[in-house]
Amino acid sequence: MTEETIERALAGHARALARLVSLVEDGAPELRAIMKALAPLTGGARVIGLTGAPGVGKSTMTAALVRAYRERDQRVGVLAVDPTSPFTGGALLGDRVRMQDHATDPGVFIRSMASRGHLGGLAAATPQALRVLDAAGFGVVLVETVGVGQAEVEVASLADTTLVLVAPGAGDAVQAAKAGILEVGDIFVVNKCDSPGAQETVRNLRTMIAMAARGAGDWKPPIVMTTATAGEGITDLTAAIDAHGSWLNSSGERDRRRRARAREEVAAIAVATLRQRMGGLPGDSRLDELADRVAAGELDPYSAADELVATASA
Amino acid sequence: MTEETIERALAGHARALARLVSLVEDGAPELRAIMKALAPLTGGARVIGLTGAPGVGKSTMTAALVRAYRERDQRVGVLAVDPTSPFTGGALLGDRVRMQDHATDPGVFIRSMASRGHLGGLAAATPQALRVLDAAGFGVVLVETVGVGQAEVEVASLADTTLVLVAPGAGDAVQAAKAGILEVGDIFVVNKCDSPGAQETVRNLRTMIAMAARGAGDWKPPIVMTTATAGEGITDLTAAIDAHGSWLNSSGERDRRRRARAREEVAAIAVATLRQRMGGLPGDSRLDELADRVAAGELDPYSAADELVATASA
Repeated sequence: MTEETIERALAGHARALARLVSLVEDGAPELRAIMKALAPLTGGARVIGLTGAPGVGKSTMTAALVRAYRERDQRVGVLAVDPTSPFTGGALLGDRVRMQDHATDPGVFIRSMASRGHLGGLAAATPQALRVLDAAGFGVVLVETVGVGQAEVEVASLADTTLVLVAPGAGDAVQAAKAGILEVGDIFVVNKCDSPGAQETVRNLRTMIAMAARGAGDWKPPIVMTTATAGEGITDLTAAIDAHGSWLNSSGERDRRRRARAREEVAAIAVATLRQRMGGLPGDSRLDELADRVAAGELDPYSAADELVATASA
Repeated sequence: MTEETIERALAGHARALARLVSLVEDGAPELRAIMKALAPLTGGARVIGLTGAPGVGKSTMTAALVRAYRERDQRVGVLAVDPTSPFTGGALLGDRVRMQDHATDPGVFIRSMASRGHLGGLAAATPQALRVLDAAGFGVVLVETVGVGQAEVEVASLADTTLVLVAPGAGDAVQAAKAGILEVGDIFVVNKCDSPGAQETVRNLRTMIAMAARGAGDWKPPIVMTTATAGEGITDLTAAIDAHGSWLNSSGERDRRRRARAREEVAAIAVATLRQRMGGLPGDSRLDELADRVAAGELDPYSAADELVATASA
């Protein structure tokens, strides 16, 4: 059953692929068998992260990039990581409607991942979904995250190339700096360049990027101006992504990033496994007992954690 | 040395308190001894979380609330959780300047926590800093988070009462819904009510709150209109916080939240301990080896994690 689903997904059947991603996202019992089967097929996809504050036009940009890579005959996967919301997938997500252009194109696979809201939600499910698309032969996978902060740092660790989107406006570049995303961007995109203030935002960004302490070697992140709704600047953007790709290869940074990614992935799964072991079983109320004593001030949380670890490792 | 620092901090010396928080934030070796000493003194503080997208005026609101609680003769602690940035504490954080009103007031302690950018950064350091302020007798602790998404869910699990700030504007209430923060708010605050569109934002919010699936019993989250820069609506807001506090007590929800908080805290520390054990030692390259095999496609991440867990538990 699972084997058949895997075979059909690899052969390009959209429904089998969707089912495989669901199994992975849900942490189904078949997950381990699936991952074992796919491992030798991974490593071919270029992973592009796309991040920025709400309202900067990430979904429109994603749609524009899908179009651009389809014109190059690349198969494109999209993983949109949305926070949990009763509205996810509903009428509020009007942005998603724009993606319907690609709904009938078998060379495009779009998946809205629910960010689980618990520690390790995004960190656990997204890399595995990425592996599925990678193994299924998608040459480009776009990972789009909503939100500012922790999620951006995580998407940067998943991607070969991370795009940070900023909209023109007095405070926007400053907000990006405050949110700590200057450090994670490989390419900066000032989108909505038909709005006033775009040039000033580019200038501000340039100053702040120069000031930000960066650890990514000799790559100087370019700033690309776009208006995704009109398709303007997209050619410049894909050229910048290509240039970053060449640098990743020649500098050995791609290999370094992929090993770091695997490291995070393995550690996150191991932690989730241990965590489950500590408090997951319905009859196991050890954590509850210890927590109640902490809440009552009878015990400090570190002593409680030590007792818990001793139990879990036993 | 540590004992003396603890004693002085509990006696109200700001410098000793700052040092204690630093030790806790850095995960210093003294951490466990400090937590053990403080445990019996905790449980008195009312913890108020304050969250919302960048630019809605969180810092100004925090300053206004500090003023309001000082007028009631409450000692107030503030933990501002900012993402890592080379600018943290620097000139870009003009917002912080407004807090200088309180810089010489010994009844106010303000701390900008760096969100570490790694899994469990915020989750590990902030609850411990909160414990220090709680034990030191701060009646109110405000926890302010920058960003949208995961951090908001975490702050909600730390706080007795969570305030969600929204600014007027066509898309803002919708953005709040998309970010998944409708579910975590105990009180909604439409700030900057001197801007156009405030009434419409209140209406939109009301509709969406009614639609959101909530699990917090019979509490109906009110919407308070404020203009924090002018001090308007702050009395209404503190009244709403008081009303929520009464409900927390009468419904037993305060106790339930505190036990859940302790549970998360203990589990997070246990996980961090195990994680450190798995790959923390400089000479221990087990995780690196496994990760390299995953990156090369020789091994899937789940099999790698299983091998790692077997090592860590041995």
